[in-house]
Amino acid sequence: MKHLLSVDDLSRGDVEDVLDLATSFLAVTKRDIPKVPALRGKTIVSLFFEDSTRTRLSFETAAKRMSADVMTFSVATSSVKKGEGLRDTVGTISAMGIDAVVIRHSSAGAPQRVTEWIDASIINAGDGRHEHPTQALLDIFTITQHRGRDLSGLKVGIIGDVRNSRVARSDAKLLTALGAHVTLIAPPTLLPESVESWGATSSLDLDSVLPELDVVMTLRVQHERDAQSRFPSLREFTKRYGLTLERAARMRPDALVMHPGPMNRGVEIAGAVADGPSSVIDEQVTNGVAVRMAVLWKILGSGGDVV
Amino acid sequence: MKHLLSVDDLSRGDVEDVLDLATSFLAVTKRDIPKVPALRGKTIVSLFFEDSTRTRLSFETAAKRMSADVMTFSVATSSVKKGEGLRDTVGTISAMGIDAVVIRHSSAGAPQRVTEWIDASIINAGDGRHEHPTQALLDIFTITQHRGRDLSGLKVGIIGDVRNSRVARSDAKLLTALGAHVTLIAPPTLLPESVESWGATSSLDLDSVLPELDVVMTLRVQHERDAQSRFPSLREFTKRYGLTLERAARMRPDALVMHPGPMNRGVEIAGAVADGPSSVIDEQVTNGVAVRMAVLWKILGSGGDVV
Amino acid sequence: MKHLLSVDDLSRGDVEDVLDLATSFLAVTKRDIPKVPALRGKTIVSLFFEDSTRTRLSFETAAKRMSADVMTFSVATSSVKKGEGLRDTVGTISAMGIDAVVIRHSSAGAPQRVTEWIDASIINAGDGRHEHPTQALLDIFTITQHRGRDLSGLKVGIIGDVRNSRVARSDAKLLTALGAHVTLIAPPTLLPESVESWGATSSLDLDSVLPELDVVMTLRVQHERDAQSRFPSLREFTKRYGLTLERAARMRPDALVMHPGPMNRGVEIAGAVADGPSSVIDEQVTNGVAVRMAVLWKILGSGGDVV
Repeated sequence: MKHLLSVDDLSRGDVEDVLDLATSFLAVTKRDIPKVPALRGKTIVSLFFEDSTRTRLSFETAAKRMSADVMTFSVATSSVKKGEGLRDTVGTISAMGIDAVVIRHSSAGAPQRVTEWIDASIINAGDGRHEHPTQALLDIFTITQHRGRDLSGLKVGIIGDVRNSRVARSDAKLLTALGAHVTLIAPPTLLPESVESWGATSSLDLDSVLPELDVVMTLRVQHERDAQSRFPSLREFTKRYGLTLERAARMRPDALVMHPGPMNRGVEIAGAVADGPSSVIDEQVTNGVAVRMAVLWKILGSGGDVV
Repeated sequence: MKHLLSVDDLSRGDVEDVLDLATSFLAVTKRDIPKVPALRGKTIVSLFFEDSTRTRLSFETAAKRMSADVMTFSVATSSVKKGEGLRDTVGTISAMGIDAVVIRHSSAGAPQRVTEWIDASIINAGDGRHEHPTQALLDIFTITQHRGRDLSGLKVGIIGDVRNSRVARSDAKLLTALGAHVTLIAPPTLLPESVESWGATSSLDLDSVLPELDVVMTLRVQHERDAQSRFPSLREFTKRYGLTLERAARMRPDALVMHPGPMNRGVEIAGAVADGPSSVIDEQVTNGVAVRMAVLWKILGSGGDVV
Repeated sequence: MKHLLSVDDLSRGDVEDVLDLATSFLAVTKRDIPKVPALRGKTIVSLFFEDSTRTRLSFETAAKRMSADVMTFSVATSSVKKGEGLRDTVGTISAMGIDAVVIRHSSAGAPQRVTEWIDASIINAGDGRHEHPTQALLDIFTITQHRGRDLSGLKVGIIGDVRNSRVARSDAKLLTALGAHVTLIAPPTLLPESVESWGATSSLDLDSVLPELDVVMTLRVQHERDAQSRFPSLREFTKRYGLTLERAARMRPDALVMHPGPMNRGVEIAGAVADGPSSVIDEQVTNGVAVRMAVLWKILGSGGDVV
């Protein structure tokens, strides 16, 4: 595996590999000294054109636990010109002999374009509304910890601001590829135009679908994208699509509640549900580091024994 | 010791420990390779909600000299919502398996609240007008280098913008706990409301107190806090409370001049006094790294031999 | 060598040393694990008062490949007061026991002034319109890779916004010191006032000089400096001084095209020329890391064998 740009790049075997590796690395992260020399001497640049302390910190923690050198290159989107600006920035990084670039960019497809200009491996940490493949992998790792590796027939609901969500797209595509049934649940204006291309079905009615779901994945309401025009009022949204305590009481007893973070508590999810017994939201964050160690190892590792 | 939130957490034995450890670590920092493997594999996040390159750099230097991995998470206060926002940020860090968080926040008590949400150790690097315990420890370490460990009866004056100063509060409380006599010297509007709860006495008249002081601790005038309403004109302030060359000439010959930095030269302290023979201001900075190594070791270390 | 402030500090022997070391370090950077323990335990601060991810990243990559600890101290120029502000910032860094400071500042001479206040080594990473000595060294290293060590008689043209360029000044002075003939080519308003003090000649007419040049060094048009008043329109500039494809066709077949980056493609250089067969622009970036490793080693190293 040279790059990770989209979940489409991942065969079932690749996913199995990542899950196996992540299991090993999760054990590493729980050691007294949670550090392995696996990527010693490798240099990884985190190139974030959108703010994201959470994802950046997860990748950098993963890289440092593998003894890689990490450099942060945060760029306010406004100060970088599109097109050539990105190209020359990447060209510079390339010429410095960097091994991998973890990139987040507001334009869908930016990580793909970058691969044409650079020898280093490119890992997509979120591009516009397009994809966020490591989030899908960590979500699936978290689900398999509770439900085992066989996801066929598993019922997953992805709820809320689906249209604007790269997390939703990556999760829906990878989950369906692994045999799960995904339902996208949102008001009509927040559903993507071609639900089918995601391999999913859709519903406007959370209350009718909720009692059957094995996994209840809530999404961050993204005021900062096209919210103004398409978004119902927050109060109305919460009333119809918020995962309130009342709704949570009607979930299957063994349903898992997930959220990619950061949460708007009281909007798409009640604080008491986020902190409640069904929630695996903290596990998602913990697993995020292990999954990113797995991805970095799969891309940059020598193939030898790592733990 | 799990956290360091306030000087109230420190017994006399803890302070002695920190001073002993700081003495050893100061020797380490003067070696040709000033680095020990003491905290190898430990991950420390510096979480600064207020700008402070000085304190951040001191903690990060300390952590790196002990071979810890350090990640910086700088957050403009404006972009983080109070309450839940801080909670979820901290929850994320917690779930990533971080060992310690060095936190600076504009709200008094924020580090304390954070301990409720996270397993990691919390070190207060300054919270609002409340406390800055490592500054008090490094100030005391610096004083003991010149006056020995027994501080009983030592006369310390803390001068200037006392009311707004977390440094003043931490220093006054810890110094009096160790037996020193602390006098807070300021115009009435810049004195705290309950001087007694700090264990100190107060004076409005620097000139009458100055000749008796063993330690003359000047504070940064903090224009950025409530200065507008309570603050006299800078010219008037300097005339009555500035440590000018004329005033410095009336100090005891062995008095120590201290300042937590960054200084407003020509306001609370004359440049020639800051750079003069009584000044230990540079030593404070040097000692800051050693004291923070000591605190990190006391909190995160295995208890074994470190140097 | 204690500091590197200006190319004037460099004897011919120093330059030879840097080129030899850079050759060795370039080989290191191409190893599978491109890392040496040469500067283990040394702490280097990058102190950038002007934005420059490119140069900062190059120095930090160099330092990390030598196992030094690196801390970044980025300061928006606006928030640091001139004079005392810089002095106290540097004093703080000094007291922390840092070994070297890589400094970029908008004021010519700032790195020189800093040496008066600090024991650490100072490396100038660009000061105002004054100097950028490591850029000159990496440019010369790149030229020698193609033309050998003897630069006598080599014809180098430095084209464009010469007046505002610290790169032009450092390159012109060091190249002429090594025997090359440098011609500064620019409209009259963009030529420096005393061309002779740079050891160079000047020309207003690129087209007449271009066919004889061995090295065609284009400069970034710096809108951000005094451009408004002195600068011709961009269209007019490109017409007379831009390295277009048409002009590139009239270069000597073995001429080298260089640019210190970041480029304004389509302004001072056509994209097709920047990416064309004569361009060594990517090599400049690659060599930059090796040359900075060489400079850091020459300044901070123990003198022993490093690779």
